[in-house]
Amino acid sequence: MAKEPKQLDELFHDTLKDIYYAEKKILSALPKMAKAAQNADLRAAFEKHKDETEGQVARLEQVFELIEEKPQGKKCAAIEGILEEGQEIIKEYKGSPALDAGLVSAAQAVEHYEIARYGTLRTWAEEMGLDDAAKLLQETLDEEEATDQSLTELAEAVVNQEAQAKAA
Amino acid sequence: MAKEPKQLDELFHDTLKDIYYAEKKILSALPKMAKAAQNADLRAAFEKHKDETEGQVARLEQVFELIEEKPQGKKCAAIEGILEEGQEIIKEYKGSPALDAGLVSAAQAVEHYEIARYGTLRTWAEEMGLDDAAKLLQETLDEEEATDQSLTELAEAVVNQEAQAKAA
Repeated sequence: MAKEPKQLDELFHDTLKDIYYAEKKILSALPKMAKAAQNADLRAAFEKHKDETEGQVARLEQVFELIEEKPQGKKCAAIEGILEEGQEIIKEYKGSPALDAGLVSAAQAVEHYEIARYGTLRTWAEEMGLDDAAKLLQETLDEEEATDQSLTELAEAVVNQEAQAKAA
Repeated sequence: MAKEPKQLDELFHDTLKDIYYAEKKILSALPKMAKAAQNADLRAAFEKHKDETEGQVARLEQVFELIEEKPQGKKCAAIEGILEEGQEIIKEYKGSPALDAGLVSAAQAVEHYEIARYGTLRTWAEEMGLDDAAKLLQETLDEEEATDQSLTELAEAVVNQEAQAKAA
């Protein structure tokens, strides 16, 4: 039997499963990043983003409901690779002045992956007339962009200076 | 012997090796994405970006020179995972109306990874007083952001509509 040609609705569903899997992985990575952070403000930023991520998972579950599908993840090689780099930073920079700068860099790679995915999903939802789904995806996109921005500010204000200090 | 505590200059060098490896992987992935693309404008966009990427590799080699290091890559798990997802799209969506929309989505995930990395490297270069390096990194960052934007425009103008068509 020939496979059905896949249209945008199927791509939307596949990509939703991809980011659902990714968010769950991020949820389990954030406490490790918070624990590793040397700067208290950076630790607090990771803890705050964990709470936000729980809300983002809940929003994705609402989107699954809106398209009448069961919330389900699909292995996302991208987030596995991105988070693996964060783990390497923790291992290779432990006890070094540059650890926190590396953690911010790793976290911003995660944020940008999410920004790409949510931007795409939001646009597809709009084009398919899924207005409620588009609204939920936009809310998360706004949060991810704000997180990325606040990590930049934290890096520029303090973390990058600490990384240039002579001792940890 | 205890390891030397690592500072920002070492993190900068490590991250430069990461993105150098990533750019080379992207260079070999782009012709496959161009070949897979159904829409002629999308194919042309991937071909144009391949030429740009060659220039970006050359800029990275200049940055290595500025910090008196040999251009060298370091395995980047993130880009491997991101590109693997692009390969999956090509395989799973071949012959389907949604293939090109999936390719744009995959390419934008690549762009966002690069935007994260170049933004970080540019800021670190500035903070270490490496003004010439910062300028080169900013040039590439501007190109990546323009590529991301032009992919969005192409998707909204034509690719996403085609993905909703009834036949490939």
